[in-house]
Amino acid sequence: MARLDEAARFSEPGPGVTRFFLTPEHRQVADLVRRWMEEAGLAVHMDAAGTVVGRLEGPSPDAPTLIVGSHVDTVREGGKYDGMLGVVMPIVCAQEIGRSGTSLPYALEIVAFGDEEGARFPTTLIGSRALSGLFDPATLDLADRAGVTLGQAFADFGLDPAGIPALKRDPEKTLGYVEVHIEQGPVLEAEDLPVGVVTAITGIERHTVAFTGKASHAGTTPMETRRDALAGAAEAIAAVERIARETDDLVGTVGSILMEPNVINVIPARCELGVELRSPERGIRETARRTVLESCEEIARARGLGVEHTLGYEEDGAACSPRIVAALKAAVEAEGYRPRELFSGAGHDGLAMSALTDIGMLFVRCRDGLSHHPDEHITEEDADAGARVLLSFLTRFGTPQP
Amino acid sequence: MARLDEAARFSEPGPGVTRFFLTPEHRQVADLVRRWMEEAGLAVHMDAAGTVVGRLEGPSPDAPTLIVGSHVDTVREGGKYDGMLGVVMPIVCAQEIGRSGTSLPYALEIVAFGDEEGARFPTTLIGSRALSGLFDPATLDLADRAGVTLGQAFADFGLDPAGIPALKRDPEKTLGYVEVHIEQGPVLEAEDLPVGVVTAITGIERHTVAFTGKASHAGTTPMETRRDALAGAAEAIAAVERIARETDDLVGTVGSILMEPNVINVIPARCELGVELRSPERGIRETARRTVLESCEEIARARGLGVEHTLGYEEDGAACSPRIVAALKAAVEAEGYRPRELFSGAGHDGLAMSALTDIGMLFVRCRDGLSHHPDEHITEEDADAGARVLLSFLTRFGTPQP
Repeated sequence: MARLDEAARFSEPGPGVTRFFLTPEHRQVADLVRRWMEEAGLAVHMDAAGTVVGRLEGPSPDAPTLIVGSHVDTVREGGKYDGMLGVVMPIVCAQEIGRSGTSLPYALEIVAFGDEEGARFPTTLIGSRALSGLFDPATLDLADRAGVTLGQAFADFGLDPAGIPALKRDPEKTLGYVEVHIEQGPVLEAEDLPVGVVTAITGIERHTVAFTGKASHAGTTPMETRRDALAGAAEAIAAVERIARETDDLVGTVGSILMEPNVINVIPARCELGVELRSPERGIRETARRTVLESCEEIARARGLGVEHTLGYEEDGAACSPRIVAALKAAVEAEGYRPRELFSGAGHDGLAMSALTDIGMLFVRCRDGLSHHPDEHITEEDADAGARVLLSFLTRFGTPQP
Repeated sequence: MARLDEAARFSEPGPGVTRFFLTPEHRQVADLVRRWMEEAGLAVHMDAAGTVVGRLEGPSPDAPTLIVGSHVDTVREGGKYDGMLGVVMPIVCAQEIGRSGTSLPYALEIVAFGDEEGARFPTTLIGSRALSGLFDPATLDLADRAGVTLGQAFADFGLDPAGIPALKRDPEKTLGYVEVHIEQGPVLEAEDLPVGVVTAITGIERHTVAFTGKASHAGTTPMETRRDALAGAAEAIAAVERIARETDDLVGTVGSILMEPNVINVIPARCELGVELRSPERGIRETARRTVLESCEEIARARGLGVEHTLGYEEDGAACSPRIVAALKAAVEAEGYRPRELFSGAGHDGLAMSALTDIGMLFVRCRDGLSHHPDEHITEEDADAGARVLLSFLTRFGTPQP
């Protein structure tokens, strides 16, 4: 917990923690992580994608590598735990493994990715994409809000992105990728559990759905002749909620709305909704998408409105490896907790790492399910429970179990 | 129609007509109206409230006065007909009355009010309030967007608002107030009628209804534990529409929405709706208000949301005088049209004039029900029909009918 407080000092001014990729704050936290890793007995370097990598060699040069870690960047005005918890916790475990003289049947690499949130550049998962060979050099031309391209930011940071393709790992020599992360949701808190085992990371799709009607006088236009874009949109909002409630393993949200003319005495002419659907199962998500869009078209038809739909973003989910899920559940039980399975509604580096290797995640309870906020909080007891489970997992994984 | 085109030249630059109270454009159009009135044989002056008044004396000094007119101001980027039609048309009629040597049993006063729209200062109906004794001197301290107070604007225009209280007319000596106006709605167009007779001017109330929930992660928060302010607001939007559809002589509109944080991947924390209810009957409006607010509270309760309600504005409607309605209907029939009764969903100077005297209004069909827009349009045929009906009304009103 002291280390998490220490890392939180490296932030832009303002509430909470604001630490973006390839900034002075990134440099400061990377130096801190490097020092902790060295104190834990790891061999440390920063790779060409800005990831701090600390390695504990395996029993033989051809032993496979288990990669464990998370990210050091934050959203604007985020919290202390999203990302950093999953960097600090395996370092503490490695220190304990070294102290106790435990020998692992694999090489352990702890990674501190520089960009998971995508808060500076309009791209994301840069460090994990590099390891899995998914890094797209075209993204080097993408600029941040100040107009600095990703390529220039790498150079300013002293890194040569030409080295990124060579970071791609060999799947044959990689045992898996495991990440500890705060839950960012209310499930563990509601069930009074300190930790949970993730079975899948959700897939996401985002749409804009725009209803168009006719602006007219709110006093003089009879109810029967109105073409009210907001009244249609309100039905669509209800439909998204109903479909998501009726479908297992799906959440659906209308989070944004844009209205024209948005004046109290004029009937709304245009109403654009930002609609998001998430599910760990692509099939569930695609079925829900069809149902939502058919509902919107039916609503528009019945009201004489126009409706236009744009798919803005889509990212498939990733299932966690049954082997890693089983091993994490065994570790949870070994530490005396009920092994609750849940899926991650948020995206994580595991999405990119799943293209390379088996993935798994351990969630730690967070207060009020709150994340991406200065008030993001976990308890010392839960951090301790998470660390013990992770240590138990690390010392037993890759070893034949009774 | 040529006069309406001529008046439209006096506008701020930009699309349509923008002519605010006590501006150079107001001065220009007032001078034009004065010239037309003088050509029609009226005695003309501008009163202390900025109204151009043209008077045709009655058969005797104690004959009562019938006031006929409308306003010369517009909204920003409004049209040529809203207001000006009701100024030009009685002047044309007065000219015809003079030409034909018809003698009226009353004194006729044609008024061109300077402010009906309330587009410059946060107050409205200044000219008609002056005549009915409702002018509030406290409004002289209200400022426009440039910081000029109403009192200063009067002085800059060469008027002394200290003279306004003396403008109050004697109800005993006033026969009524009649206004011709474009319909600003689709009823006459839908029924293929050039004119309609107004039975009442709507009352208006405006509310803000704010639902508050909890911002949380759109991916990690299960559907069952969400407190989504927009989902609640969507139900309220549907309730307003349903209540208005089910209630005769009521329209209800949610025209504006304000969301926080209004980000696609965050569950809405706060959603504020601008709700307007209009009815010519206060009782209908008050019943609808209770039903709407009870629905909002029930929605909030069922969803664990907070709800706050503010009444922002309320103005009672005004019924038209049965005597004037009957006389206008007789004139419509005399000119060969079906006498369609309708109510005005928009506010007009009659609201203030009804405190002084009997009121009545004649509506003229406008294209697509469109007003407050550069494309506002009426046909020459409909203008002619309206003028013939008004002339018929003026020549028969106050005379015992067979």
